[in-house]
Amino acid sequence: MRISELSERSGLPVQTIKFYIREGLLPKGVNSAATRAEYDETHLERLRLIRALREAGDLPVAAIRRVITALEDPGIGLHDLFGTAAYAIGPRVEEPGDDPAWRAARREVDALLEELGWRVTEEAPARTVLAQAFVALRRLGFTPSPAALRPYAQAAAALAEHETGQLREDTTRAQALRMLAATVVYDQVLVALHRLAQEDASARRFGAS
Amino acid sequence: MRISELSERSGLPVQTIKFYIREGLLPKGVNSAATRAEYDETHLERLRLIRALREAGDLPVAAIRRVITALEDPGIGLHDLFGTAAYAIGPRVEEPGDDPAWRAARREVDALLEELGWRVTEEAPARTVLAQAFVALRRLGFTPSPAALRPYAQAAAALAEHETGQLREDTTRAQALRMLAATVVYDQVLVALHRLAQEDASARRFGAS
Repeated sequence: MRISELSERSGLPVQTIKFYIREGLLPKGVNSAATRAEYDETHLERLRLIRALREAGDLPVAAIRRVITALEDPGIGLHDLFGTAAYAIGPRVEEPGDDPAWRAARREVDALLEELGWRVTEEAPARTVLAQAFVALRRLGFTPSPAALRPYAQAAAALAEHETGQLREDTTRAQALRMLAATVVYDQVLVALHRLAQEDASARRFGAS
Repeated sequence: MRISELSERSGLPVQTIKFYIREGLLPKGVNSAATRAEYDETHLERLRLIRALREAGDLPVAAIRRVITALEDPGIGLHDLFGTAAYAIGPRVEEPGDDPAWRAARREVDALLEELGWRVTEEAPARTVLAQAFVALRRLGFTPSPAALRPYAQAAAALAEHETGQLREDTTRAQALRMLAATVVYDQVLVALHRLAQEDASARRFGAS
């Protein structure tokens, strides 16, 4: 297809597509004539992935390039590819240097993951996000004990299991990455559904019938 | 207790406590002498609630006052009190006027809630948040069908059921509201645990053993 059709099907302006080519995020089209380059479905899927990474994690071009480089390296397996993308997408919070409440919360996070038996690297940014939430809970007078967190961990594990199960034999690496990026939006879905489910639970228990 | 002790136990500066009293968010202390006011546990719990509302929803004073007014009105039942607080806390997004993709997404949200049989008002802000997420999913090439959303709805319902079950006979209305406010932090916990569970699921399926 011509760049004009690629633009129409991807929903991205021709200028943006040319920018991605210059930045090395999208391979050049194949020259079929001196002034004409041809693009195919792999270009379209790549553009969809770039869009998903931008929208999901508000990723700068340099971070997208690191993900694309990992995607194109056949020596990098799917698990490491997911890690590269997931850590780039975030969410991510800065860990304050020497705050005792933070250090205690971080130890609680590490102990919880140990107890759950989850295989997660020490560098996973979500460990820090979780520690931050633990600090906030204690400030509000709640104790993030393993027992109190179990329902949330179970819900998270069930969803992760479901999502991993969506990957099929014929799912390409680019498609798999796009699905990973979409989980950021699914988290918005989850939070909104949580709010709606709370209203329903309250209506059933405390509302007028 | 004196205001200095109230400040210490609540972790809030005396100036802030005096500001809340002037704004009508916190009842005055009982004058035990011309220059001395006494505060009790209800003042402390009220301060904890104000703090939770501020931290959870970044609520302005006017919005906190509306919640406090509902809290102090014995004619307002627990379900309506929760609604007042939950709708004030958000999250909330602006619905664009006449965008066809938005209108379609909003109809999908309404149909989903109908199918789930959840008792949720038409005005619930989470309906709009969910519609926004549906628009984003379609833009990324995913279809938010009821079947695709079922695992997320089930997780949300299980958590809401668990949370409502935490309310005991002797839970005060102020405590119940503070627990509701804390669910905003529990959503951060949930999203972080989701990210960690995804890494674990990927490690078990695709990682080196």
